Amino acid sequence: MGKEFLNLMDPDDVKQIISSLNIERRIETVKLDNAHQRVLAEDVYAAIDLPPFDRASMDGYAVRAQDTFGASEDDPVILTLIEKIRAGDVPSQKVVEGTCSEIGTGAPMPEGSDAVVMVEVTDLKQNQVEILEAVTPGTNRAIRGSDIKKGEFLLSQGTFLTADKIGALSAIGLKEILVFAKPTVAVISTGNELIKPDEDLRPGKLYDINSESIANAVKSCGCLPLTASIVKDDYESLKNKIDSYKHADIIITSGGTSAGAGDVLSQVVEDTGKILVHGISVKPGKPTLIGTLPGKDVDVVLFGLPGYPVSAIMIFHAFVAPFLRDIAGVKEFMEKREGFISQLSRRYHSARGRSHYALVRIEGNIAHPILKDSGAITALAEADGYFEIPKNVEIIEKGEQIKVMPLSGL
Amino acid sequence: MGKEFLNLMDPDDVKQIISSLNIERRIETVKLDNAHQRVLAEDVYAAIDLPPFDRASMDGYAVRAQDTFGASEDDPVILTLIEKIRAGDVPSQKVVEGTCSEIGTGAPMPEGSDAVVMVEVTDLKQNQVEILEAVTPGTNRAIRGSDIKKGEFLLSQGTFLTADKIGALSAIGLKEILVFAKPTVAVISTGNELIKPDEDLRPGKLYDINSESIANAVKSCGCLPLTASIVKDDYESLKNKIDSYKHADIIITSGGTSAGAGDVLSQVVEDTGKILVHGISVKPGKPTLIGTLPGKDVDVVLFGLPGYPVSAIMIFHAFVAPFLRDIAGVKEFMEKREGFISQLSRRYHSARGRSHYALVRIEGNIAHPILKDSGAITALAEADGYFEIPKNVEIIEKGEQIKVMPLSGL
Repeated sequence: MGKEFLNLMDPDDVKQIISSLNIERRIETVKLDNAHQRVLAEDVYAAIDLPPFDRASMDGYAVRAQDTFGASEDDPVILTLIEKIRAGDVPSQKVVEGTCSEIGTGAPMPEGSDAVVMVEVTDLKQNQVEILEAVTPGTNRAIRGSDIKKGEFLLSQGTFLTADKIGALSAIGLKEILVFAKPTVAVISTGNELIKPDEDLRPGKLYDINSESIANAVKSCGCLPLTASIVKDDYESLKNKIDSYKHADIIITSGGTSAGAGDVLSQVVEDTGKILVHGISVKPGKPTLIGTLPGKDVDVVLFGLPGYPVSAIMIFHAFVAPFLRDIAGVKEFMEKREGFISQLSRRYHSARGRSHYALVRIEGNIAHPILKDSGAITALAEADGYFEIPKNVEIIEKGEQIKVMPLSGL
Repeated sequence: MGKEFLNLMDPDDVKQIISSLNIERRIETVKLDNAHQRVLAEDVYAAIDLPPFDRASMDGYAVRAQDTFGASEDDPVILTLIEKIRAGDVPSQKVVEGTCSEIGTGAPMPEGSDAVVMVEVTDLKQNQVEILEAVTPGTNRAIRGSDIKKGEFLLSQGTFLTADKIGALSAIGLKEILVFAKPTVAVISTGNELIKPDEDLRPGKLYDINSESIANAVKSCGCLPLTASIVKDDYESLKNKIDSYKHADIIITSGGTSAGAGDVLSQVVEDTGKILVHGISVKPGKPTLIGTLPGKDVDVVLFGLPGYPVSAIMIFHAFVAPFLRDIAGVKEFMEKREGFISQLSRRYHSARGRSHYALVRIEGNIAHPILKDSGAITALAEADGYFEIPKNVEIIEKGEQIKVMPLSGL
């Protein structure tokens, strides 16, 4: 039985060492249906114009704006209705002087028209439409490519794909995308006393906690646990088990680092790889070990957590989880979600008398409102969250603190 | 083409109506491997004592404490070594006066012994052990059931199963547990212009955004999207589609609520069920509809979101998501994770000269430190997060603000 020979390091120095570790990032193709909470591995550019055609942004009548000049309730302009165009239709008639087409929100603007008069300021009498208000060219019309033009940048490599980002990708008709493969992690509990729940509890034995809890915590960091297994606390068993997971990016063990166990983990790592940390000046979790083992192309990173469950999960969260989130590409996203009180980057005017929800992009502790209309999918591409402006507030000043709600859940 | 007949309601009144809705909660059995991020549907009591036997909490020698009284470096007590007990072993020798057994952390205490002398304050000379420090009965020993006793309460119905909670369940050898079935949600986009990414973009058509983005947002609320489909914007098509999802708990549509579409959704809901809300005084998302339709046992809840993608996702997050999280049983967990600055409930002493990580349970904005040792699985059962005490801080006063880190990730 050996005594402990730990070389206690300061937690900050340990974090420094961990931040210098890296793994090989692999890329895979997934269907958009399976892209939720994955990390984009390519810059995505719009494959089409959005909207793909000039379209009505209100229900009403497609007109030549100049035909409506001078119209008022007392002196309406009368236009002849030549066609009804609903969303999804293709217009067949050209709007010429003195005519108009009925049009639904999202429907293509007919040739010749350049504005939509809202249905609320019209009156239909048989096939004659009374226009009660003049409009200028472009009114209630979204022109082709006004949200995003074919070839323009949409989402960057590294974006964490929440529901709203997937919406933005589906808008340009993408079926598949490239994402980073989830880093793979073998989770191994060491201890002669440990058994799995499918075994009976014999004298001296204990149901294992760490393999289940750490494997699930690995999932929570955007990584893929390859196994959650138990191994005996002797040199050969542990070495064989570790050798069998050299195809993993990371191996996380727990237990096997204390004096009584003869510190078999450090012996295995010393013999086959390199010990970087053996002992951290923290409580709990002092006997933590970090090392590397030669892998296929790059080294396999090994974290040896203490055996006690609370110590193991605390060291996991304080040291291992930030590394896993980083290599999985979800770190920035998760940090944005913590402590979501932000400062508004600019004065913001709200809708009078109505509660208002406004999308924001987060940069540090600054929230930038996204000033685009509700049809803009590029707003979804940019947004990190939203804030609410109550109905009795009309202006929020630059620098005011706002509570940002995240656009994603679990 | 109709005009809009909305009966605009205040957002708070709408939230009130939503909070009065309910669905039937179903229960299912899952294996512990598949329990991550599910919601416990039963109170769980310990099926065994933990630890299941008296065990050593340090590496050293199991002794009769009284044999060590008076021992010091200058005047050691000498005991005869009679056995080596490692974790997982079953002791075969009784410790009697003048004898001791070598023991590893986690190994069962041999009969007759009542304390463990740490290996660091001993000296082994052949089979004679020099004890350099006296111990009192109970030192470095965890007695059977000291963490939790068989039959004691462990986790309550409604607990969101993060990695640490699954660790606590695996500690008592559970193979399967009862969880709430995820509420089922049919997601339907309405619009003649909408197509799926596997179709070519023909004139007047638009790739659908909402079915993908809302279906994924539904997942983020702990619910199960049954479909993400598109339906034509006419009465028969929409009614047939809605009828075909009456086995769902919830139906979420988008589009089909504006005047141009003849407001077919409200007609369908009026004819087959009950409209509760038609119009909310918010921006964006004014024409939102909420209703119920007769279902199998309880009513199906229907949310009719606006068609514009940003409006749809904002109304989803502001009104629908809180409801989904509530019925999925994940609301409390998610709220705990937001704005994680808490006040410490009591004065806390830290380890001198070492960084310290301490588990806490959150109640409102108060963080209660969990004062249990690192082997205690009941600490994992109670914990919501942890905070760090830097190495140069020894005491944190009651009421001080601390930053709590969640114990779960994505």
